[in-house]
Amino acid sequence: MSGIEILDTTLRDGAQGEGMNFSVQDKLAVVRALDDLGIHWIEAGNPGSNPKDTEFFRLAGKLKLNHARLCAFGSTRKPGLRAAGDPQIRALLEANTETVTIFGKNWDLHVREVLRVSPEENLAMIADTAAFLKAEGRLLIYDAEHFFDGWKANPEYALSALRAAAEAGADRIVLCDTNGGSFPADIAAGVSGALRLLPPGFSLGIHAHNDMGLAVANALEAVQAGCGHVQGTLAGFGERCGNTCLAALIPSLELKRGYRCLPEGRLALISETTRRVAEIANIPVPGSMPYVGASAFSHKGGMHTDGVLKLSRSFEHIDPALVGNTRRLLMSEVGGRSVVAEKAKKIDPAFTKDHPLAASLAAKLKALEAEGWAFEGADASFELLIRRELGRYAPRFRIEAYRVMSEHPTGETIACSHGWVKVLVGGRYEIAAAEGDGPVNALDGALRRALVRFYPELERVRLSDYKVRVIDGVAATAARVRVLIESTDGVNAWSTVGVSADIIDASRAALVDAIEYKLGFFQNPADLEKARMPGGSEQGA
Amino acid sequence: MSGIEILDTTLRDGAQGEGMNFSVQDKLAVVRALDDLGIHWIEAGNPGSNPKDTEFFRLAGKLKLNHARLCAFGSTRKPGLRAAGDPQIRALLEANTETVTIFGKNWDLHVREVLRVSPEENLAMIADTAAFLKAEGRLLIYDAEHFFDGWKANPEYALSALRAAAEAGADRIVLCDTNGGSFPADIAAGVSGALRLLPPGFSLGIHAHNDMGLAVANALEAVQAGCGHVQGTLAGFGERCGNTCLAALIPSLELKRGYRCLPEGRLALISETTRRVAEIANIPVPGSMPYVGASAFSHKGGMHTDGVLKLSRSFEHIDPALVGNTRRLLMSEVGGRSVVAEKAKKIDPAFTKDHPLAASLAAKLKALEAEGWAFEGADASFELLIRRELGRYAPRFRIEAYRVMSEHPTGETIACSHGWVKVLVGGRYEIAAAEGDGPVNALDGALRRALVRFYPELERVRLSDYKVRVIDGVAATAARVRVLIESTDGVNAWSTVGVSADIIDASRAALVDAIEYKLGFFQNPADLEKARMPGGSEQGA
Repeated sequence: MSGIEILDTTLRDGAQGEGMNFSVQDKLAVVRALDDLGIHWIEAGNPGSNPKDTEFFRLAGKLKLNHARLCAFGSTRKPGLRAAGDPQIRALLEANTETVTIFGKNWDLHVREVLRVSPEENLAMIADTAAFLKAEGRLLIYDAEHFFDGWKANPEYALSALRAAAEAGADRIVLCDTNGGSFPADIAAGVSGALRLLPPGFSLGIHAHNDMGLAVANALEAVQAGCGHVQGTLAGFGERCGNTCLAALIPSLELKRGYRCLPEGRLALISETTRRVAEIANIPVPGSMPYVGASAFSHKGGMHTDGVLKLSRSFEHIDPALVGNTRRLLMSEVGGRSVVAEKAKKIDPAFTKDHPLAASLAAKLKALEAEGWAFEGADASFELLIRRELGRYAPRFRIEAYRVMSEHPTGETIACSHGWVKVLVGGRYEIAAAEGDGPVNALDGALRRALVRFYPELERVRLSDYKVRVIDGVAATAARVRVLIESTDGVNAWSTVGVSADIIDASRAALVDAIEYKLGFFQNPADLEKARMPGGSEQGA
Repeated sequence: MSGIEILDTTLRDGAQGEGMNFSVQDKLAVVRALDDLGIHWIEAGNPGSNPKDTEFFRLAGKLKLNHARLCAFGSTRKPGLRAAGDPQIRALLEANTETVTIFGKNWDLHVREVLRVSPEENLAMIADTAAFLKAEGRLLIYDAEHFFDGWKANPEYALSALRAAAEAGADRIVLCDTNGGSFPADIAAGVSGALRLLPPGFSLGIHAHNDMGLAVANALEAVQAGCGHVQGTLAGFGERCGNTCLAALIPSLELKRGYRCLPEGRLALISETTRRVAEIANIPVPGSMPYVGASAFSHKGGMHTDGVLKLSRSFEHIDPALVGNTRRLLMSEVGGRSVVAEKAKKIDPAFTKDHPLAASLAAKLKALEAEGWAFEGADASFELLIRRELGRYAPRFRIEAYRVMSEHPTGETIACSHGWVKVLVGGRYEIAAAEGDGPVNALDGALRRALVRFYPELERVRLSDYKVRVIDGVAATAARVRVLIESTDGVNAWSTVGVSADIIDASRAALVDAIEYKLGFFQNPADLEKARMPGGSEQGA
């Protein structure tokens, strides 16, 4: 099985994407995650450009990595300087990485109008810088910026730039579609042209951008044309429309094209690692991301659901477990008894679609959906619903009363919103109040304060997302709203839903489910087992 | 210039994506937006599968469309039934669209193991259904489900299914990569195989899915191989990882491949239309979406910013204006002025980007955007903002104070939410109270009651939609929310926005703009003119 070297540039090109901002600690966490996945190279920053990256490389040198090699990234020397005398090149060396990436100009237009030096001086800048870094013992990757545009405009010059890098000792040459404007056929032509120039066996790479939605296709085309080194970012982050999404590319290369990109057995970590990296970046993985997104193996249409249950490959191009993802049958107006049974089976393995409760559960679900409930994004609420219907769950608490007030202007000692809640837990009442940035925040705060005296583990729970959707636009502010809440306790994540004509009441329902789920299923495995036992004590606290 | 027919299936395949849920009003709004863009066909739902789609088609028949033709979508007849006797086929006819799409099975595995009929019966189902719908006078599109998988497994059978459709009179045959597991080379082979079978000039189509991140590449490959009809969804919505993103594909076809997909001059509407459709779906357009995303022409890296300022094509593969998008230089003062000038020109034709207020307006806009305001879906608020800054507008009323309370349980004489508002209009105060189904509804009711004594025309105004989005998911219920409101007076429709950490306060801002806009611009044309005159009386009532 032929190997493809993978270089992840989340921490360099990815960090140049809009809204991306990694702290030094974030960067170290990303490096660890990518190393665990078995990525070959991690391009981790530009030590010459900012002090944060300098500090990062100082700390990163102490990391014990199992697979990955760190790269520092920079450019060819400045015009008129010696490489050894260029502070940016010195900073690259001081990052103390085994591998260094430098980018240089290959498009004559850029040489003339952006860099504003002679074509010869540009070639000298490439050759000098490469030779100097090689003499300093670095493994050297040369990123040929704008190679494909340069190849189209002036192929001779573009190739002469590659030749300068190769002759000076570059270990890898990477052809970059910097503006993302190339089609697969352009990529194939450029790669073939470059390969003809280089000695047999030279390791050529590809660095694509997604400005036409073709980054994955272009990387695949380049591999097919002979590239053995692929750059990208695990979650597709990067300048403008992003880089090649490695989470979309690697599974295709490994599962369908017979290449090895990661150490054996690591592909199944790719979904989890992509989510981890995205979480560090504080950008959610789109549900629709190929292979690793939460929706990548979700089935909603009735015929798709039915087909997948009969024969998984009827609507799945691979087994989701191969990439560490899972199939999800979405509860929607199209689903029926078989979907309900599939879900209930996880709670009661004996449950089939012929179980006496299957029909009533399906009917209950249909009725709730007619009222505007949607469980496809709220697995925790759906599980609670089934447990309640099966008599396999009893609530840990009850809200006896609440009151939330929003006012304007506010008094000197009072926030714009404030709430109070009275709860009943195991026969004891508790009242608490809180101020908030809005009525839901105030209600949430008061509810937690009241409950935390009984359940201290709620201290660790926080909402990670809160979404509101008006279900029927016609009645507008009097219409029903659906609130979706995502919660986390730092280890687990779960989602709940509430529906009401009143946004406060809908939020209340979703908040209550979120807390119930945490108390029931992420607290103490023994408690969970107790709750599952028919006839066992299901009363919390 | 060779033409490519575009079919958008946002309302059918898109609606099968996770988290998608269109009301009938949403669907009508999407149809209008796609028609304005000049999309050829709009596949708008499955009338046989749910009553919502039946109702939609009843109302859609009354729409006056300029470019688009509506398609109803369904499947071949059930095994053992006559097409005329199949209720699903009857529902397709009753949708009363000029065009009907039916999908049929082309992969023998599916015929045997999912459909569980004989290969011959499946061919008869295709032929009968197509012939019946043609006899009923419909333009017929045959979607060849799983064509590429079928072609690989049993090419003879896959082609015999196409032949059955063609011989029965299908006007278009669309090859579907239903599971999204095909590479561009598979697509090219399948398209060529199908074309050899069909009469010269037959219009073959492609329907790709993005499960490997290759939907756009596959659609391009199919066009290159001879397809003249492309299906997809404008924003890439669809089952699992979505369909071909038309916003990414159409600009490449038109700008770089010499095809015409939209009527002349419409391509520049594609960014705005994509945002509009996504807004209706309440799913944000990813910033990184090719061509139309907010980051697609954003430059952050210093060298990129510098390069773009020296020579735009140095880091941009096309001029963003061609697709109605804009270049954004992040963290710089350069962006904005020309966009603002463009908008302000509509209010004051003499306004240019060198107007003394252009810079301060751009700065104000930037500051508001940093706080989470977004005016793309809120033209009325944006116009009010510019008028206020230009001194061309004075408010018709002011809210002096409000208070909104939600409680549970409720007393016998009190609703779950109630509010009171005190307003100042032309020197006179008025107080009113209202109950509501939720706090926003209560606030809205109280505000209208207070104002209607001064402005009886507000009786006719109602909210037609109300949407909430959390802007920053990290702080969850304490995060900022953006409220978008659409209003109508039965003749006009307009949209407004409000942002705050407090949903009540954000709703208040959007409600106030909605009422101000009605009073200012849809009341009395003479009043509007007065408001536009510098020095004219701008005080209402």
